[in-house]
Amino acid sequence: MENMSRPLDALNKARNKRVLVELKNGRQYIGNLVSFDIHINTVLEEAEERIDGEVKRKLGTVFVRGDTITIISPQ
Amino acid sequence: MENMSRPLDALNKARNKRVLVELKNGRQYIGNLVSFDIHINTVLEEAEERIDGEVKRKLGTVFVRGDTITIISPQ
Amino acid sequence: MENMSRPLDALNKARNKRVLVELKNGRQYIGNLVSFDIHINTVLEEAEERIDGEVKRKLGTVFVRGDTITIISPQ
Amino acid sequence: MENMSRPLDALNKARNKRVLVELKNGRQYIGNLVSFDIHINTVLEEAEERIDGEVKRKLGTVFVRGDTITIISPQ
Amino acid sequence: MENMSRPLDALNKARNKRVLVELKNGRQYIGNLVSFDIHINTVLEEAEERIDGEVKRKLGTVFVRGDTITIISPQ
Amino acid sequence: MENMSRPLDALNKARNKRVLVELKNGRQYIGNLVSFDIHINTVLEEAEERIDGEVKRKLGTVFVRGDTITIISPQ
Amino acid sequence: MENMSRPLDALNKARNKRVLVELKNGRQYIGNLVSFDIHINTVLEEAEERIDGEVKRKLGTVFVRGDTITIISPQ
Repeated sequence: MENMSRPLDALNKARNKRVLVELKNGRQYIGNLVSFDIHINTVLEEAEERIDGEVKRKLGTVFVRGDTITIISPQ
Repeated sequence: MENMSRPLDALNKARNKRVLVELKNGRQYIGNLVSFDIHINTVLEEAEERIDGEVKRKLGTVFVRGDTITIISPQ
Repeated sequence: MENMSRPLDALNKARNKRVLVELKNGRQYIGNLVSFDIHINTVLEEAEERIDGEVKRKLGTVFVRGDTITIISPQ
Repeated sequence: MENMSRPLDALNKARNKRVLVELKNGRQYIGNLVSFDIHINTVLEEAEERIDGEVKRKLGTVFVRGDTITIISPQ
Repeated sequence: MENMSRPLDALNKARNKRVLVELKNGRQYIGNLVSFDIHINTVLEEAEERIDGEVKRKLGTVFVRGDTITIISPQ
Repeated sequence: MENMSRPLDALNKARNKRVLVELKNGRQYIGNLVSFDIHINTVLEEAEERIDGEVKRKLGTVFVRGDTITIISPQ
Repeated sequence: MENMSRPLDALNKARNKRVLVELKNGRQYIGNLVSFDIHINTVLEEAEERIDGEVKRKLGTVFVRGDTITIISPQ
């Protein structure tokens, strides 16, 4: 099978790369994907927060609780 | 039994095909279904986001957290 | 006991029949009930979506995530 | 102990009787309680839906997903 | 240890006594506490419903689904 | 290790002391912390309810369902 | 592997350091991270609450229920 068979494989492939994480409350975090777990708890480094596409805060390291996430997309 | 007996069979049949994924927040993602798991965490490729039917963003690969999904429909 | 004793028995009896599925967000899907599981993840075929009773979309096959469902009623 | 000791005993006692089921979205279903399970998934027969106390629809059999229910009260 | 050590002990002590049950949707049920379980599913008898402190309905027996409850307080 | 290593240790240390419990719906309960469990179901005694900082009700004993709590803070 | 492999490692590294905890209801707590568990229940000391960036209350010790948290970021 040429395709990845599990969703976490896609996250694994994005490790150490820049990803976009979007939350149920509409906020966006862009940062380097350092780690994640089966709950989709996710840690980004060199992260910045955007609201409606606009940079609001530089956050450095940020732990995002998985159940608040809607999508994760490699940039 | 001629019919599929479990809901995940329908997703399995849609692998590598174009699907529509709709979220509780009203957003729509259209892309090639690469993978999913029992939580309905789902990965699409060549994905685009639509809001109210209008293309908003080209996203490439997107991981969608299962608990935010309402429906998935093969196109 | 003449009565069905478990809720899933009622869904089982509705397999291959036309059912109405209503979601927490107010949307309605009408289609042939193909499959369901213990989470009430449900697959309909020849499905159409209604909003406030009005047909909005023909969807063909649709996978509905169980936790978004309020009621299922055979037509 | 003269009293019922578990909540599901009260539902069991209401089997085949007319009950009111109220949902988080404010809707009410009145019907004959056919079955329920530990998630409080519930099946009613000869059911009708009321919104703000007014009959909106005759539904026949209706499966109500447990996590959407607030109260069940025998009539 | 003179104090009760587990929260369910406080509910147990309130069995057969009049309690106030408040829900996430703001409704209040006052009745005799008949039973509860670890999910805090709760059954009241001789119950009445209040909205904003005003009696709205006499309900007799009422099963309240635990996950919709915010507080329970003996009267 | 000089520090407490688990969150429930902090609650344990607050037993029989006055604590503030805040809920997702904005209400505040101040009372003596009698007991809690791993779901953070919590029992207070000599409790009073405040809304926007103002005392609304004297409640005596109150059981607070854990999943409705945002924070607990010793006073 | 030079990188941390699990999200909780990032929290562990932040122990005894000043962190920002943000909740689904928009509130922010800044304090010394004393402890956390797998549910992301978190205890801060010398904590203060901010709403829209403004200090509202000095709280001393605060237990934050994990499921109400969106992000945690070391300061």
